[in-house]
Amino acid sequence: MHPYRSHTCGALSREHVGENVRLSGWVHRKRDHGGVLFVDLRDHYGITQIVADSDSPALPLLESVRVESVVTIEGVVKARNEATVNANLATGAIEVFAKVATVLSAAEELPMPVAGEQEYPEDIRLRYRFLDLRRETLHANIVTRTRIISDMRRRMEGAGFTEYSTPILTASSPEGARDFLVPSRIHAGKFYALPQAPQQYKQLLMVAGFDRYFQIAPCFRDEDPRADRLPGEFYQLDLEMSFVTQEEVWETMEPVIGGVFEAFAEGKPVTPIGQFPRIPYDEAILKYGSDKPDLRNPLLITDVSHHFTQSGFGLFEKIVGTGGVVRAIPAPNTADKSRKFFDEMNDWARAEGHAGLGYVTRKGGEFGGPIAKNHGAEGMAALYAELGLGENDGLFFAAGKADQAAKLAGLARNRVAAQLGLVEEGTYKLCWIVDFPFYEWDEDNKKVEFSHNPFSMPQGGMDALTGQDPLTIKAFQYDLVCNGYEIASGSIRNQSPETMVKAFEIVGLTKADVEERFGGLYRAFQYGAPPHGGMAAGVDRIVMLLCGAQNLREITLFPMNQRAEDLLMGAPSPAEHKQLRELNIRVVEQPKG
Amino acid sequence: MHPYRSHTCGALSREHVGENVRLSGWVHRKRDHGGVLFVDLRDHYGITQIVADSDSPALPLLESVRVESVVTIEGVVKARNEATVNANLATGAIEVFAKVATVLSAAEELPMPVAGEQEYPEDIRLRYRFLDLRRETLHANIVTRTRIISDMRRRMEGAGFTEYSTPILTASSPEGARDFLVPSRIHAGKFYALPQAPQQYKQLLMVAGFDRYFQIAPCFRDEDPRADRLPGEFYQLDLEMSFVTQEEVWETMEPVIGGVFEAFAEGKPVTPIGQFPRIPYDEAILKYGSDKPDLRNPLLITDVSHHFTQSGFGLFEKIVGTGGVVRAIPAPNTADKSRKFFDEMNDWARAEGHAGLGYVTRKGGEFGGPIAKNHGAEGMAALYAELGLGENDGLFFAAGKADQAAKLAGLARNRVAAQLGLVEEGTYKLCWIVDFPFYEWDEDNKKVEFSHNPFSMPQGGMDALTGQDPLTIKAFQYDLVCNGYEIASGSIRNQSPETMVKAFEIVGLTKADVEERFGGLYRAFQYGAPPHGGMAAGVDRIVMLLCGAQNLREITLFPMNQRAEDLLMGAPSPAEHKQLRELNIRVVEQPKG
Repeated sequence: MHPYRSHTCGALSREHVGENVRLSGWVHRKRDHGGVLFVDLRDHYGITQIVADSDSPALPLLESVRVESVVTIEGVVKARNEATVNANLATGAIEVFAKVATVLSAAEELPMPVAGEQEYPEDIRLRYRFLDLRRETLHANIVTRTRIISDMRRRMEGAGFTEYSTPILTASSPEGARDFLVPSRIHAGKFYALPQAPQQYKQLLMVAGFDRYFQIAPCFRDEDPRADRLPGEFYQLDLEMSFVTQEEVWETMEPVIGGVFEAFAEGKPVTPIGQFPRIPYDEAILKYGSDKPDLRNPLLITDVSHHFTQSGFGLFEKIVGTGGVVRAIPAPNTADKSRKFFDEMNDWARAEGHAGLGYVTRKGGEFGGPIAKNHGAEGMAALYAELGLGENDGLFFAAGKADQAAKLAGLARNRVAAQLGLVEEGTYKLCWIVDFPFYEWDEDNKKVEFSHNPFSMPQGGMDALTGQDPLTIKAFQYDLVCNGYEIASGSIRNQSPETMVKAFEIVGLTKADVEERFGGLYRAFQYGAPPHGGMAAGVDRIVMLLCGAQNLREITLFPMNQRAEDLLMGAPSPAEHKQLRELNIRVVEQPKG
Repeated sequence: MHPYRSHTCGALSREHVGENVRLSGWVHRKRDHGGVLFVDLRDHYGITQIVADSDSPALPLLESVRVESVVTIEGVVKARNEATVNANLATGAIEVFAKVATVLSAAEELPMPVAGEQEYPEDIRLRYRFLDLRRETLHANIVTRTRIISDMRRRMEGAGFTEYSTPILTASSPEGARDFLVPSRIHAGKFYALPQAPQQYKQLLMVAGFDRYFQIAPCFRDEDPRADRLPGEFYQLDLEMSFVTQEEVWETMEPVIGGVFEAFAEGKPVTPIGQFPRIPYDEAILKYGSDKPDLRNPLLITDVSHHFTQSGFGLFEKIVGTGGVVRAIPAPNTADKSRKFFDEMNDWARAEGHAGLGYVTRKGGEFGGPIAKNHGAEGMAALYAELGLGENDGLFFAAGKADQAAKLAGLARNRVAAQLGLVEEGTYKLCWIVDFPFYEWDEDNKKVEFSHNPFSMPQGGMDALTGQDPLTIKAFQYDLVCNGYEIASGSIRNQSPETMVKAFEIVGLTKADVEERFGGLYRAFQYGAPPHGGMAAGVDRIVMLLCGAQNLREITLFPMNQRAEDLLMGAPSPAEHKQLRELNIRVVEQPKG
């Protein structure tokens, strides 16, 4: 017999009754029923109940061993009697009567419990991550994560993609965040950078003729702590295709991403593959007040500015008269809501830094509130008719400059739906946001800037760049959104060196700047570059959504804490003087205070 | 029709004759046959011959376009006449008569050719890697590499392993090489390290109960240039298993590694799975003079010291009398070799820094050379009889201290076999080297040191550590060797905190040192650690062997040069002053010299 186990702890069932077996695992729980000791023995595959009584030579050892010790049990498989069968457990029909028990590794007193899943301080959980990872939910999340990634790989290969690993020690990449730097020992005073994304390499792969690339790619950004991103590293499903239009990228990736969602949604509905809505950016901003709309929320925002060009409600008339807008957010079936409900929404908007959130109440057809009073019931009825609202529906208004009103309306849409319980839970609603603006106005520096990816192809190409107001140019650029989260982003790339130089000129950079910053790619485009495009999907975010986890640390093996420290391994840590000397660097002492 | 292609350049065959098609790709070659222009159009999938003549409106454009430009061709598929069918090409039965040609991206004059595969200076190849990667052999090698890695993954998953990604920004790992450091911005004066291997993390995964881990793991070592390792990063097939013996690791991994070899050997014989020889380290050193024996070489080394305890050849008698050894390397069928062949072997040994390589010649039973003369024909005949050598076989001798003689004998075995053409080409011979010594004598520091991995379990455990001469202790440690190259290395780990402390004490380290250097792992072993073991296989080396490549750069997408520079992306490069200030470091100016 194998020295450690004839079976795993998830393998035994009624068909093994009577067999002599050997199991190894962790002592998960112990229950002493007056002379009869029950031990739940746990490994990666499951839990098996071990029994020992005074007839068992293993009893004394099992009585004395601490939970989470690793033991080997030899014994005989017995059927449980009907009353004690546990249908929730794969091995619930049997137990193993222990004849011999051996301690392979004794556990000290635990700093945190493994069995049960009570909340525990994060510092302890991270310092003792090897115990935390034994806990049921986290262990299962990590396994789900690996299954999702494996499934992604399988689907990508099935779609004709090949996985290529790109360098990790490389040059600074122009993703806009801060790079992690690595001092070069051989080249004094020079540094490698860890890739923020393999953007340039994947484009170079297309220029090198590899056609369909993907990679589960580690990416590195030295950003300040953010709730939705762990410090340090994260993973992207990164991909690129040659000789494609953006529609082909969408048609190729919907079955992959949608397929992964369907495979891991555990029966929850997912937007059907081939039917992901394609919503232009401008429409998303208008209807949802966001380029990351949560389509589980049925509320739609409408521009109602034209109702207020002349109005007894002077504030809106003034806003519309000076180029502003009024956007309406319905609050259906709120006839029984108190005035407080509406006033608190207004207070919330002010607390968020907005001028306020106007509203109209309606109860059995009667309008209420100051806006309705000033604007008049007739005008309100016309507005309600246009929006298709009923006799007991309230209405909120976000007014002001278009971008600010859109943003407030989007936040209000989320809040109203949440408070009224209108968000459809237990479903994954996916959509593409398309036609992003190529440029935007940078108010701080009073200049035109790239909105997103400077490597994207502007719609209309060189003609658009030379003949159109830059702020009206759209890019072949798109996001994939699920339940209000951006889960992927991509574009068709600008592979023409002349168009690339022109696109950078508009934001005030010269050809020399392009050559200096993106020399490898710019050089490559001179020697036959195919049209190409792709995207990158956030693996961590997708896993989080599918695991129903609220925090990235609940789906990550060995995360750093919010201070970018690895408490388990003790990183970062001081370097030895000799190392720094070899690297030609010195630590600069910080002035105190 | 698709704007870029109805088919790839590898897709068309006789069944498409008469169809209108659209192809896009690179202009690989152009041949002008007096008014008829032939263009080989290339993409990732193949090459299709395009034809244009004076009837074709596409002719002028195709005549003027430079090779490696990217073009789209519309035309009609025609069957080639029998005389011009190219059976070596998937599309060799057809050609496409061009009606329309469009340039998608014009190529400048090339700095290096793509078609054909003439040698080119490495600096140019690396700087224009996107062109180099279009060349047939390199392109194919990269694709083979990705297929091998994908195949490894599939086999590992099939063997019940799960892939877990471990952190890349972490703490210094104790693999013995130099770490790459990453300054922390948030923690002034502290540094992350890039992992030399995920050794500690994979062991922590076992302690966390994950049972069977693998990873295609990026590893980082800041080493000085070596012929067999690229600067910077390399990839390991890294794996670990819980509740296993070393035999189980071998039995699990032979089908994986052997399977990969069989799948990619292109019909060459591979040592059958389940029949990899298991050669103890001591035996390998004796018989092959190396722990990386090339089993394609049929020559075996024999210790013949006992023949020289008394000998007319005084030098060997003296060596054996003072604790040294004499090892014999056969040189079969060398009766017709001149004296020069034997003398040059001796010269080579001296040039390598050894005292010399003695020899005996034999021709039709007659011994020749000074050793035979002094030792006597009778003694020689007895020695030949013992070694089973014949009337026309020569013999070389490596004599001296055991380790030096073994090393010289191993090198001589390689050289003799190479010069006599005895190495069996076109085959993959795999074996396990097992029972490595746990400790070795460090002559420089006059102390006992770990031979390989300090985390390995010593055979005999605590009893051996406390009761045995350390230099006689073996470890549960093994290598996998193919054709003279180590392609994998592993061990059963020492998971007992007490044994770990004792093992380190023997090399002069204290419990406090262990806690400081390997705190995470040492702490984990206190709370229930399963017996575990595993190995790591060198992906790059395996790919090299299977591609028949002589240089790692021939199987790597974007390698650095031997000066650890990425000539394509321009890394490493100076950092901005602002970046360094944020990272609390300063570059130290080097004294010129």
